[in-house]
Amino acid sequence: MRLALEYAGARYIDVLRTRRGDFRNERKRPPFAPPYLVAGRQVIAQTANILLFLGPRLRLAPRDEAGRLWAHQLQLTIADWLTEVHDTHHPVGSALYYEQQKPEARRRAADFLAHRLPKFLGYFEEILEASGGPYLLGGRLTYPDLSLFQMVTGLRYAFPHAMARIERRCPRVLALQARVEADPRLARYLRSRRRIPFNQQGIFRAYPELDQRRNNSKKT
Amino acid sequence: MRLALEYAGARYIDVLRTRRGDFRNERKRPPFAPPYLVAGRQVIAQTANILLFLGPRLRLAPRDEAGRLWAHQLQLTIADWLTEVHDTHHPVGSALYYEQQKPEARRRAADFLAHRLPKFLGYFEEILEASGGPYLLGGRLTYPDLSLFQMVTGLRYAFPHAMARIERRCPRVLALQARVEADPRLARYLRSRRRIPFNQQGIFRAYPELDQRRNNSKKT
Repeated sequence: MRLALEYAGARYIDVLRTRRGDFRNERKRPPFAPPYLVAGRQVIAQTANILLFLGPRLRLAPRDEAGRLWAHQLQLTIADWLTEVHDTHHPVGSALYYEQQKPEARRRAADFLAHRLPKFLGYFEEILEASGGPYLLGGRLTYPDLSLFQMVTGLRYAFPHAMARIERRCPRVLALQARVEADPRLARYLRSRRRIPFNQQGIFRAYPELDQRRNNSKKT
Repeated sequence: MRLALEYAGARYIDVLRTRRGDFRNERKRPPFAPPYLVAGRQVIAQTANILLFLGPRLRLAPRDEAGRLWAHQLQLTIADWLTEVHDTHHPVGSALYYEQQKPEARRRAADFLAHRLPKFLGYFEEILEASGGPYLLGGRLTYPDLSLFQMVTGLRYAFPHAMARIERRCPRVLALQARVEADPRLARYLRSRRRIPFNQQGIFRAYPELDQRRNNSKKT
């Protein structure tokens, strides 16, 4: 969401980082949970829904309905993927600390790295191949490209060893990540203090015990 | 998705229940996973995305953009909720059997019933109160009402004891469930063989050991 706004050069206020935003006074159509976007009198929640709204306005979505649904479908798939990343460190529940669910987290993370991560990466590699690249929808960047960039960057932070091994199989996904990272429209933002660094409170967390080395018996 | 099609009296073929559908020949815009809808030359995946497409066509969504985004936001919240229901019996991974993750499932289900289920039900109760009812968007049924009906019905199948206790606190949600169940537009479908009964292979599963009785020490 921030990436889409920054890429398009939109003016926005990041309420979370300036003062505490409280939109519980939105009584008629309240969000279930953050994040949400306040645009005029509308309060819109659910990241994929926010991007559905912003996409056409920021020129980050196709014009035709079929194309917009396809971009949204990719975004929803990335949202599912992100939930699975979160659940690698919180497989029992978000009300508990990671430290209270470490054995479960180990099992879930191992399953994620063995089965789900290659499946998701392989899927997006396939989409990039079918689209002709360099972006998911072809020659022009749309908002799911920004989400895929964020996903790959976050996964490298959280699972550096597993990613180093798996990502070789998806050169197109890697090329997309590098292309977005180098995009002049994002370069200043990515170096700025507005860009929130990955950290141990977010969705992507670097717990070495959840990462996967080739030889699990070898500890370095 | 089936409920929306049935409610609107749309003609459709349930490929899953007739012959195996294989849309892997959809090479340009392939779905990541089922379910998907084939509408003319379009293949649309992700349930919420399918309902976003069907909503206006089946007259199950508001006409204005803000209303459509709001309906979609509610649908996405129900989708998140559904993922959490699934994870009560598969907290480690879908590649494993339930029997291979029973201790983890017990912890996750307990957390879900204690924290998440009341939160979700309370949220939708609040929405129904704010809308004036009887439906989530007010006087007219839209597709998230059908999804909420399915959710409550499924939860009662999966967690009869926990639901019997919690649902007293959300009379509006219960009234919506009963109203949809009794709707003449759905009555024939719900009694038909087209309606798939809840079962132990689906998302809602009745594992008594994951349900919660008031007194956990008392076994009956």
